[in-house]
Amino acid sequence: MKTLEVVYTPALLPLYQVQGKTVVVIDVLRATSTMCVAFKTGIQKILPVATPDECLLFKDFDFLCAAERNAVKLPGFDMGNSPFEFMNPLLKDKNLAFTTTNGTKAIKQSKELGAAQIAIGSFLNIDVLTQWLSQQPNDVILLCAGWKDKVNLEDTLFAGALVQRLQSQFNVSCDSALMASQLYQTMQHDLVSFVRESSHAKRFKALHAAEDDVQFCMQFNTAPVLPIMQGEYIINFASQTA
Amino acid sequence: MKTLEVVYTPALLPLYQVQGKTVVVIDVLRATSTMCVAFKTGIQKILPVATPDECLLFKDFDFLCAAERNAVKLPGFDMGNSPFEFMNPLLKDKNLAFTTTNGTKAIKQSKELGAAQIAIGSFLNIDVLTQWLSQQPNDVILLCAGWKDKVNLEDTLFAGALVQRLQSQFNVSCDSALMASQLYQTMQHDLVSFVRESSHAKRFKALHAAEDDVQFCMQFNTAPVLPIMQGEYIINFASQTA
Repeated sequence: MKTLEVVYTPALLPLYQVQGKTVVVIDVLRATSTMCVAFKTGIQKILPVATPDECLLFKDFDFLCAAERNAVKLPGFDMGNSPFEFMNPLLKDKNLAFTTTNGTKAIKQSKELGAAQIAIGSFLNIDVLTQWLSQQPNDVILLCAGWKDKVNLEDTLFAGALVQRLQSQFNVSCDSALMASQLYQTMQHDLVSFVRESSHAKRFKALHAAEDDVQFCMQFNTAPVLPIMQGEYIINFASQTA
Repeated sequence: MKTLEVVYTPALLPLYQVQGKTVVVIDVLRATSTMCVAFKTGIQKILPVATPDECLLFKDFDFLCAAERNAVKLPGFDMGNSPFEFMNPLLKDKNLAFTTTNGTKAIKQSKELGAAQIAIGSFLNIDVLTQWLSQQPNDVILLCAGWKDKVNLEDTLFAGALVQRLQSQFNVSCDSALMASQLYQTMQHDLVSFVRESSHAKRFKALHAAEDDVQFCMQFNTAPVLPIMQGEYIINFASQTA
């Protein structure tokens, strides 16, 4: 039986055998939710990059450029990291270079540690993702992007939602998975209020911005896409196979 | 107001400001539970050491020597890491050198990162510890020893029990603390069965050993001692002030 593990922050990923496994990168507030929205809008491919400077280089190659640090859009970029910025129909068929505080770092680290596949997870695409994870052949690691290597609530809750959906088909024995699943089970009927108590939601509030983003990112299946890494890019695998 | 943070594994401790804070080291199965039992029996002081070789050096100085690795007592030592081994009245007034897979490492790391005080926590001394934490002046970090730098269930649950008891007197804003507290609140009436599902309890079972230890270590206030570091040693602060 395939194994399913949960890793609460990228700082802990080196403790795990990553080589040959499928890693699901989770950054609910907001990078992976925003990527799902971008693909729903019709973005063709996303290039996750490490730094804002690197990101801007791709303007010359007709990429849109999005950059966020510490929950704020950086000046000089087309977009930041709010899902509402990625709904404009003008984005259809464009390429996007994207850098965020936590999400893009978790993607790059999974690649460096030898993941066989990297998928992008959020509440917005949970069912499509669950179905694909059931059918693909590899052991799975759910990697929470966290906040600057610390544990966060919303990514853990989403990991718990996936564990609950997948546990009959995987061998789930790590304590992180048990805990995430139990937390999700307890809070699932009141996710938004619980997440509003999180440190990241409070960070948004302090910035007088992005409060709507919390509610938006906790919706189930409103962007049923399947973002998967192919080489250096993330593409919507669902549209490739449709 | 003093702050209260929870750190799920020693691998994450370097992300936190430790200098000047009080760190509670938590290794429920079994190092910190066993230390509480040792002090209840009347051990005078405990020297936490990093390696079995270093531990054995202290035989020459009339220390009892206890060593565990991977949940097993090492050959040539007086004791391993089961609380039942530390109930013998002959231990009274002795000194103990002790090394374990996770617990003693977490203690030494807290010291290296500049903790102002280091206390030892377990269900067995929760009320005495809670009262002391309320009264001491520093910000507090609850450090789960985990298993080889991975997150574990039983230490997180205990951290949650402490958060629940202390939250009215501390500023609790980290997500790890919120999650631990919520998990404890959900599972508190069925702690032993939940912990029996943990990876470490299963590790015990696979060794055909120490199964009674799980139930023993989940008892509240059966060893009401207050183990605190003084210099290189852990002493029972409760008996010093009594």
